[in-house]
Amino acid sequence: MAVLGIDLGGTKTAGIVFHDGEIVERYRATTDITSSETVMAGIVEACSRLLEASESRGLEVTSIGLGIAGFIDFERGVVTDAPNHPLHEAPVRDVLQDAFHLPAIVDNDANVAALAEARLGAGKGCRYLIHLTLGTGIGGGIIVDGEVYRGAQGAGAELGHMIIDENGPICNCGARGCLEALVSGVAIYKRVEELSWTKKHSPMLDEFRADPLAFRAEAVERHATDGDEFALSILRTAGKHLGVGIASLINIFNPDAVTLSGGLLGCFQFMEEEMRMTVDGMAIPISRRHVRILTSTLGDDGGTLGAAILASSQG
Amino acid sequence: MAVLGIDLGGTKTAGIVFHDGEIVERYRATTDITSSETVMAGIVEACSRLLEASESRGLEVTSIGLGIAGFIDFERGVVTDAPNHPLHEAPVRDVLQDAFHLPAIVDNDANVAALAEARLGAGKGCRYLIHLTLGTGIGGGIIVDGEVYRGAQGAGAELGHMIIDENGPICNCGARGCLEALVSGVAIYKRVEELSWTKKHSPMLDEFRADPLAFRAEAVERHATDGDEFALSILRTAGKHLGVGIASLINIFNPDAVTLSGGLLGCFQFMEEEMRMTVDGMAIPISRRHVRILTSTLGDDGGTLGAAILASSQG
Repeated sequence: MAVLGIDLGGTKTAGIVFHDGEIVERYRATTDITSSETVMAGIVEACSRLLEASESRGLEVTSIGLGIAGFIDFERGVVTDAPNHPLHEAPVRDVLQDAFHLPAIVDNDANVAALAEARLGAGKGCRYLIHLTLGTGIGGGIIVDGEVYRGAQGAGAELGHMIIDENGPICNCGARGCLEALVSGVAIYKRVEELSWTKKHSPMLDEFRADPLAFRAEAVERHATDGDEFALSILRTAGKHLGVGIASLINIFNPDAVTLSGGLLGCFQFMEEEMRMTVDGMAIPISRRHVRILTSTLGDDGGTLGAAILASSQG
Repeated sequence: MAVLGIDLGGTKTAGIVFHDGEIVERYRATTDITSSETVMAGIVEACSRLLEASESRGLEVTSIGLGIAGFIDFERGVVTDAPNHPLHEAPVRDVLQDAFHLPAIVDNDANVAALAEARLGAGKGCRYLIHLTLGTGIGGGIIVDGEVYRGAQGAGAELGHMIIDENGPICNCGARGCLEALVSGVAIYKRVEELSWTKKHSPMLDEFRADPLAFRAEAVERHATDGDEFALSILRTAGKHLGVGIASLINIFNPDAVTLSGGLLGCFQFMEEEMRMTVDGMAIPISRRHVRILTSTLGDDGGTLGAAILASSQG
């Protein structure tokens, strides 16, 4: 018995065939975000390719799981809205079920990543786990008693929009001082931009000024490695904000583990010390002594594995 | 079949006999916080009196539920620590079971208050509910799929120690900008004290200066009713902070309802508008449109009723 796990992000669509606890096939393509139709066509293409690959291996696929970056109506299998691709009120589950005559299940990408960490990853065996995906934005997943927490309508676990500084910078969501407005790739880019308006000079700031549109948050990691004082300062401050958010989550959830994944982990070595000092100073002792704060051991596979685990649960 | 529900606070110990969905007996006494022994003796006395009253009515009591203001090790039935009374590593469950030969169950007071709201109160029928007790401090309870959420060790739902302003005032817990440091009775008292250091005058500030130690946060309600501009400003600001905390909780939990109880509700009329405006501006639309924000309909009975419901669940 095999299942498909698909991870739809704003830039790439990844998929796996998961069989006997192993990834036996992989698929990866650029997400064509021209329109809702091109995104859906990309998902269908990923499933078709992986089903063909399964067939050629003699594996019967029993269900399809999808993790999608966006707001999901879990009961109806609909992507209601998404910040990084054009799906809007898209009945993804029904489209796939009609196309392939297989049961399909659709969830938020950070929810399934949390499930993967709790079942197979850094938090393996944890009944209560909080997962943060640190990328361009910040996604969140909550595992309660071993299962994904979704809330009343499936819109829960928006941990990137936990407000940690009510007077802080405006977030994409319209609120102020969300974790995402202080720690994400976008937040770090904005801090570099702010510093570029000053008269200070450093290799990073000069690179930014030379071509702001070409500058990527990932460059901050390189400059921090080279010792750029502004890069280091920005990442330490981001680490402190991350620590505040994690401390709050520890006080709220008393979890076994907090796990972290995403592109920003490349910078984690420069953020970790401030993050841990802040958690030590701000989280309630009983919960703080119990929790482990861990980086993902699944890397880019977290999303597809989580989607496959979700598919298995209803296969 | 009847159960006892006991609510142990820092100032009062209340109890009920709960039978056929009705409160049939009540008990109330001042909590003697001289020592751990006097507090325990008070709990035993409350149970004894209520058991006698049940017997004289011909009711058989099958279990005892307790809601206690403090950190609870739920599995072991132990109060590990408490801010407002001297219980510390106190095996409350076992003491009661030995004394009365009845099953007993011990939980945090805000957890049981949340359960009461979800089963019998303002949030009746809600599967996902967040409850805040707004008093001297701020307690929190989380209902997930109709049941109390406790986390890995029973220390979860410390919603008063969600950090909403990382640069805000120091909280009793040692962190900065917790909801409790910005909205509670203690927080409001401290804002009055700060204003009393200025050269401003108002009936409230002059009353505070006359006898700071005799001043109670409750007086702010009276002064606000009389139109004291500083009282009104403090409560509006507290309402805004409360709105930030509720918005964050809505984004995290996507609940059916957020319910509010506690002594600070006397001031709620002066806080509500700012609170609702802030929630409207800061919570994610899909979750915001779904949630209802409600004041408790159970009043002082929330704690004892919740404890009784908890007792019924294992009776």
